[in-house]
Amino acid sequence: MLLDKVPMLKRADLVLASGSPRRVEILNDLLGLDVRVVASTFEENLDKSKYTPKQYVQENARLKALEVWERLIAAGEAPDLVIGGDTVVAHKGAILEKPKDTAHATEMLKSLSGTSHTVFSGVALIFRAPDSEQVIEETFCEATEVTFATLSDASIQAYVQSGEPMDKAGSYGIQAAGGQFVSGIAGCFYNVMGFPMHAFCVRMAALIDEKKMSLARAS
Amino acid sequence: MLLDKVPMLKRADLVLASGSPRRVEILNDLLGLDVRVVASTFEENLDKSKYTPKQYVQENARLKALEVWERLIAAGEAPDLVIGGDTVVAHKGAILEKPKDTAHATEMLKSLSGTSHTVFSGVALIFRAPDSEQVIEETFCEATEVTFATLSDASIQAYVQSGEPMDKAGSYGIQAAGGQFVSGIAGCFYNVMGFPMHAFCVRMAALIDEKKMSLARAS
Repeated sequence: MLLDKVPMLKRADLVLASGSPRRVEILNDLLGLDVRVVASTFEENLDKSKYTPKQYVQENARLKALEVWERLIAAGEAPDLVIGGDTVVAHKGAILEKPKDTAHATEMLKSLSGTSHTVFSGVALIFRAPDSEQVIEETFCEATEVTFATLSDASIQAYVQSGEPMDKAGSYGIQAAGGQFVSGIAGCFYNVMGFPMHAFCVRMAALIDEKKMSLARAS
Repeated sequence: MLLDKVPMLKRADLVLASGSPRRVEILNDLLGLDVRVVASTFEENLDKSKYTPKQYVQENARLKALEVWERLIAAGEAPDLVIGGDTVVAHKGAILEKPKDTAHATEMLKSLSGTSHTVFSGVALIFRAPDSEQVIEETFCEATEVTFATLSDASIQAYVQSGEPMDKAGSYGIQAAGGQFVSGIAGCFYNVMGFPMHAFCVRMAALIDEKKMSLARAS
């Protein structure tokens, strides 16, 4: 796991290509890393119909990270690692992202009420191989099943009015008031929050132990 | 669910008979309640061998809440609700609570490594029936299965040295750095944190809707 590698990683230049406060919280507050945010300007305009949810979040994560990596390199910077992330909710064959407005949030929450859905979070890691100019792109994805209790109209209305759903895939935040709607999950909780913490730690630890990742600033 | 009842509940005198910062966070920060803490002085000296984990956490929660309820009533206070909570980890037939010292924490984490265990959180609610002096004690319990990845000795050592395990049942905190050890859970995440948020909301909403709970200060 990553815990014993945190002191070394804190000396590296780690960049998160996402402005999501949940991803920052997981990486910096929970894992104790010192990631800086350079939010991607990638438009997220992929044609959903051409991807499975697993492919979709990994490709979105990769394109977000790549945009930031190329922008930083063009500016003369040399980040050790750029991390991209993307999260969607898959429900009844549809991919749900952030709601467009409060009516859309209400509609999504009504459709999730009393059913189970799957949250997919994709992660992309862009870095250099040690002692080489080769740029490596790694992506992976984690799926978590989430079961919603049956929600009353009054609960949905109060929740939408709180504003919490508006910046969240599927119109709810499991890490805040929306967590009360969830009777249970199967899989990684942090994946539902937007970043598969355990899978990230396993992958990073392997890349470091197998000396596949250059961490020039940390050595 | 409880969301539409929060404005009313904020006017009630709700007491949490536990000093656990995780329980305060769930009730006040996530659910938006305004619970005050009166930590119980109950000794937690029950004979574990006489209880199943489910019975044990509910009886501990009940005795913690009852001690606070009786102390407040004796002092002339009239709380609307006292909430008690208790959490244990059940693993290979044993009940694990907080570690006694760092050696004990190391031993617990080694035993949890690469296996699954069950977290039981019990909740007790003590309140009055409406228009009556009758004191009602309700208890319930939630179980969540947690799967740990295989942990290296270096990870366990770094984690124990961080101090995080020392005040936590089972020697880990899923809501902090310890979350990286968890490959997945089955059930309620907040139950693992120490308080079954969803079950609490369902139970409270039913007690209010069915007019079984006096909330004198909130009416």
